Amino acid sequence: MTKPPVSTEGSPRRGPYAKGIERRREILERAIGVFAERGAERTSLRAIGDAIGVSHAALRHYFASREELLLEVYRFAEERSAEHDPEPPGGSVVDMMTHAARRNRGVPGLVQLYSTLLAGALEEDHEESRAFFATRFEHLRETLARRVESGQLRGDIRADLPPEAVAALVIAASDGLQNQWLLDPEIDIERVLGLLEDLLTPADGG
Amino acid sequence: MTKPPVSTEGSPRRGPYAKGIERRREILERAIGVFAERGAERTSLRAIGDAIGVSHAALRHYFASREELLLEVYRFAEERSAEHDPEPPGGSVVDMMTHAARRNRGVPGLVQLYSTLLAGALEEDHEESRAFFATRFEHLRETLARRVESGQLRGDIRADLPPEAVAALVIAASDGLQNQWLLDPEIDIERVLGLLEDLLTPADGG
Repeated sequence: MTKPPVSTEGSPRRGPYAKGIERRREILERAIGVFAERGAERTSLRAIGDAIGVSHAALRHYFASREELLLEVYRFAEERSAEHDPEPPGGSVVDMMTHAARRNRGVPGLVQLYSTLLAGALEEDHEESRAFFATRFEHLRETLARRVESGQLRGDIRADLPPEAVAALVIAASDGLQNQWLLDPEIDIERVLGLLEDLLTPADGG
Repeated sequence: MTKPPVSTEGSPRRGPYAKGIERRREILERAIGVFAERGAERTSLRAIGDAIGVSHAALRHYFASREELLLEVYRFAEERSAEHDPEPPGGSVVDMMTHAARRNRGVPGLVQLYSTLLAGALEEDHEESRAFFATRFEHLRETLARRVESGQLRGDIRADLPPEAVAALVIAASDGLQNQWLLDPEIDIERVLGLLEDLLTPADGG
């Protein structure tokens, strides 16, 4: 999956700076495996270093805190998974969340890491995660609200529904169902999100 | 709020056993305040003991682990809040979740504690929280599914919807919206849950 090194003659990615980026990336790739195996909550920065063969000092060089490493691992794993499995074009607002949820479930440990980071963000003294999730939810609600508006123009979504509230509802349903599924794999996330999609569809068609 | 001691002549609650129950209850009442102030994630059993003036050994006498104490605090705070503010009869499936969510938001720290415990339950080695939440969600889905069925019989909920899926959706929406609200108090949980209720209502009425 990792791309082979390419010639970067004259590019700013060459030299010690490029090596640093590469090393940081390696750490992130290996750390997601450690979280998947042990769970994030009780995995200290030192334990991660031991597991991936990086000294605690070196780890601290790349990541100021355990919280920063966790957030970066999450961002990295999610982005990589999105690159490998981009959303098909033309999907509905629910398709978008269904696709992202299915994709994230394919990366061991990623959904758990999301829950751990989110729970941490809700507590005091976790400014970085709090800012990350507050911004993430805000952007996601905006993106989804615009998609609801397009759906309403196309006649796929009931025109009388407030787009922002629908966006918040779809995101909440997807997040909440992921938790229920982690506790009980019988929970069929896609079926329940499909039900929500049906509820949003105008009745005229039926 | 605490009831005065009542005569328990001849009852099994008298004597050292009753004192133990009383002491345990006191610890739970005070611990919720500590979590509200400091957040649960980084509050060790020892720190809770220090804050409420109970030795670590005494705390260990009542609670086998920090996880057990956290779960007990959550159960206790939720039950007490339900006793003080019972659900009005005749509510819909969404009313039930809206009422519980509003009630829990009134207890400082309770919603955060829920998220922390739930995130912990999704990781390995947290058998007790995992069992607690798996059972909790299962019961909640059953209770709500029965309420959906009653709503369908009364004509308040679309008859074509599968009750279990609606139940899972309503719980998920409520949980997910609580997280969004914790990060952004502008999020109007009741408005969005009200939207979900409208979506579940048969169109005939309109």
